[in-house]
Amino acid sequence: MTDDRLFTSPFNRHSRPIPGPVSLFDTTLRDGEQAPGVALGTDDKIAIAKALDDLGVARIEAGFAAGAAQEAVSLKEIAGLGLNAKIYSLARCTEKDIDAVADTGLSNAHLFLASSDSHLRHKLSLGRDEAVAKAVSAVEYAKSLGLNVQFSCEDATRTDPDFLERFYAAVVEAGADEIDIPDTVGAALPAAMEYLAGRMSKLGVPVAVHCHNDLGLAVANSLAAMSAGASQAHVSVIGLGERTGNAALEEMALTLYLNHGHRVVDLSKLAGVARLVSRYSGRAIHVNKPVVGRDAFAHESGIHVHGMLNDPTTYEAYAPELVGMDRSIKLGKHSGTHSLSSRLAAMGMTFPEEMMPELLAEVKTIALGGKEINDLELAAVAGGLMWKGRPANTVELKRFRVTTGRGIVPEAYVTVSIGGEERSHVASGNGPVDASVNALRGALGEPISLEEFRVEAITGGTDALGEVTVILKDKAGGGEATPGKAVGLDIVDTTMVAILEAINRIYERRKAV
Amino acid sequence: MTDDRLFTSPFNRHSRPIPGPVSLFDTTLRDGEQAPGVALGTDDKIAIAKALDDLGVARIEAGFAAGAAQEAVSLKEIAGLGLNAKIYSLARCTEKDIDAVADTGLSNAHLFLASSDSHLRHKLSLGRDEAVAKAVSAVEYAKSLGLNVQFSCEDATRTDPDFLERFYAAVVEAGADEIDIPDTVGAALPAAMEYLAGRMSKLGVPVAVHCHNDLGLAVANSLAAMSAGASQAHVSVIGLGERTGNAALEEMALTLYLNHGHRVVDLSKLAGVARLVSRYSGRAIHVNKPVVGRDAFAHESGIHVHGMLNDPTTYEAYAPELVGMDRSIKLGKHSGTHSLSSRLAAMGMTFPEEMMPELLAEVKTIALGGKEINDLELAAVAGGLMWKGRPANTVELKRFRVTTGRGIVPEAYVTVSIGGEERSHVASGNGPVDASVNALRGALGEPISLEEFRVEAITGGTDALGEVTVILKDKAGGGEATPGKAVGLDIVDTTMVAILEAINRIYERRKAV
Repeated sequence: MTDDRLFTSPFNRHSRPIPGPVSLFDTTLRDGEQAPGVALGTDDKIAIAKALDDLGVARIEAGFAAGAAQEAVSLKEIAGLGLNAKIYSLARCTEKDIDAVADTGLSNAHLFLASSDSHLRHKLSLGRDEAVAKAVSAVEYAKSLGLNVQFSCEDATRTDPDFLERFYAAVVEAGADEIDIPDTVGAALPAAMEYLAGRMSKLGVPVAVHCHNDLGLAVANSLAAMSAGASQAHVSVIGLGERTGNAALEEMALTLYLNHGHRVVDLSKLAGVARLVSRYSGRAIHVNKPVVGRDAFAHESGIHVHGMLNDPTTYEAYAPELVGMDRSIKLGKHSGTHSLSSRLAAMGMTFPEEMMPELLAEVKTIALGGKEINDLELAAVAGGLMWKGRPANTVELKRFRVTTGRGIVPEAYVTVSIGGEERSHVASGNGPVDASVNALRGALGEPISLEEFRVEAITGGTDALGEVTVILKDKAGGGEATPGKAVGLDIVDTTMVAILEAINRIYERRKAV
Repeated sequence: MTDDRLFTSPFNRHSRPIPGPVSLFDTTLRDGEQAPGVALGTDDKIAIAKALDDLGVARIEAGFAAGAAQEAVSLKEIAGLGLNAKIYSLARCTEKDIDAVADTGLSNAHLFLASSDSHLRHKLSLGRDEAVAKAVSAVEYAKSLGLNVQFSCEDATRTDPDFLERFYAAVVEAGADEIDIPDTVGAALPAAMEYLAGRMSKLGVPVAVHCHNDLGLAVANSLAAMSAGASQAHVSVIGLGERTGNAALEEMALTLYLNHGHRVVDLSKLAGVARLVSRYSGRAIHVNKPVVGRDAFAHESGIHVHGMLNDPTTYEAYAPELVGMDRSIKLGKHSGTHSLSSRLAAMGMTFPEEMMPELLAEVKTIALGGKEINDLELAAVAGGLMWKGRPANTVELKRFRVTTGRGIVPEAYVTVSIGGEERSHVASGNGPVDASVNALRGALGEPISLEEFRVEAITGGTDALGEVTVILKDKAGGGEATPGKAVGLDIVDTTMVAILEAINRIYERRKAV
């Protein structure tokens, strides 16, 4: 078997080809927005629609014109942007819904009506023939208004096979321009979508599929359907959507390119678009999300890092630059000396080879609590080791008091012990953390500034632990950024511990110089 | 085509069957622990191993005996637990590594050596024949120590096909009891794993596959391999593992049962095991994670909820109880009146039908900021609407001051205005939040207690917003729990705003009664 596809694995040539042309139908702004707790305003929707268009997506479903009042406003605005992508609105099979689409000025309607017995009985109280008649008349009405129509049989994958074909044939006969096969509840296996796409492709109009991820198979199902003739896949950025979400745009775009030779979007913009959607939707990109997750190109274990440093392809199926991501080598429990040498060298630090085992042991000890060690922390630990005979803790926090509130200036009173000598200082600030740093700076007599302050809750519930990360800059020591991290129950106390950790690192580094 | 499999979709009968018997090889404690920043101590590993055994997993890879010093200790302890699952340790093809496995008292070793030209050249500097010879002699050595051996050709999916078969044949000849085909970098498509599993199954020993999720296909790939003769799939809980992780245990177990009739674990314990691993690893279960994510059975949009209330199967591929989860109906921007009626009825609240549109409009307005509205918040809004002519804010926060620190008792001084009358109170507590609640309680003269306090960071960086959720109990009003939520930059101030929100809800509800 030979073909001219690129392959991430030579065995992928056993996969059924996707001849194409194929394209993506993005539903981040419709199905994605239906994810519980996600609500996008008009400005958010415009920003995301522009980004998707710039990415090169062919079709964008931007909302549901007959839904919440703001939806029609958003759709009108997006219709007026003059984007290259075709913009769709969802609509039920009623004149009211279809009029609502036409009123926005959009040219494309995505009509749907359920076809499974479960939906017809429990949701619509319609017989099969009534459902087909209702769909046909809606398609005819939409066409009479000049709309381009994509039609979905909702819950298609749980519909009687022969009835499903009859249903789609009727809407195509009525003028539907494209049909979509939704796996509404995420129930299908890849072979099911392949069968359905193959069978419905014979109806003579372009076929799309809309796969949900309830079984963890949304991407595999969409690819299987495309190998059988589907020319569009409904996707959403970071898989945002009902329940477990839709097929992730970035995963579909990647495999269509890497293993099937179809560049359906500008891949280098994937990471940026994912971050944008995450910000507007308030949904974090999970750390091990394929393609765009924080750890998708992160390597920690000694065996992997050793290989990566010789040649990055040893532990990567594709280069992170392809999708706008960066490679990172993490230090932790599984690190080996190769990771340390490479990271220290990258920072321009010369560290004695014979002390490497001692440094590795120290890094692993720090990592045992589950902490990840970044470059700055590594530099601090390495610097500390190089400076012999250092005391365990240069600066010790003896007492502190932080006050904040409304109508008063946040204030901190801090007592530290430096080499046994106690010094106290009181200072104000923009907030309790800022005040604490100012007080410490005063007590130490040091030009230290707070560059970053981050809180992450590790668990939920009344016993929630907060992880606090601070980054301080030592203005006397060349402005190097130095982090401190701590985990605890009391947010203020935890922050103070993190700051002290960073300050001790700054002291150690200065001594090491 | 007929068979006796259960099916989530009738079209799944077009899928190639998995005849079985099949089982899971869990690597949460080895590959899972190699996820950047994850580090499990001996106690953590023991707790997870026990839970996996209780779940019914057939094989557990519990660590890497020759790795970090603590690994051998953990493996020894787990070996001594007398679990039903077979416990494995990873080992490189060296006598030192194999001795380390034997020394732990374990009977099962998972040996590996890379087979791809990329790994042989860039990582091992070995020729192909040298690699085979090294693997063969390692297998022979392990067998001479009485170990049961599973052998992996690392990076198998990027290895020359004929050389790969020769490699596996040689280790089987040398005595390997089982072979594993790792898709080390997550490069394979389902058809590739199907081809490989089919080809290597002819070697006469049980075949496992080990799939990574870099293309979002780990589960599909593992299932495809099983349909071609693989009898074991390497999995990890919540997909924890290198980079984008491994095939998720819960997704594999679910589809093997629902669509192939194999009950490989006690499915009802999946949610609990996922939470356990999340807690020990410090890795959150992402909200839309298939099977065990918070939103896997959450429904918000009006169309979906209407169907769900008539029959839950309309929008679920399988019942949440099967996997130890619960169904939830969320209120938000896409809600309809059906959601409201059902939730209010479930809480035993009688709400006038004619005010329903007004309630829906209010709920949608609250939801526009992207907030999810829970039962308690709904009750507050509904109660508020029922109580006519209420003031916008019953209790107003005028001033407050909170002090905390080390060596001092956290203390809060609060001034509130109730119907224009100012009242102040000072109180101490276990922490700044507890002290604030106590002070408010004093100022109001009310028996209110803090039940829950949760902080979630929404974005990273210096401008990180924190979302604070508090739940208060009104001991005078029948002990009903009442939440308050706020988002802001200053953690203490934001908490006070959230508490005030909850207190005003308590007041509104009391008036509504």
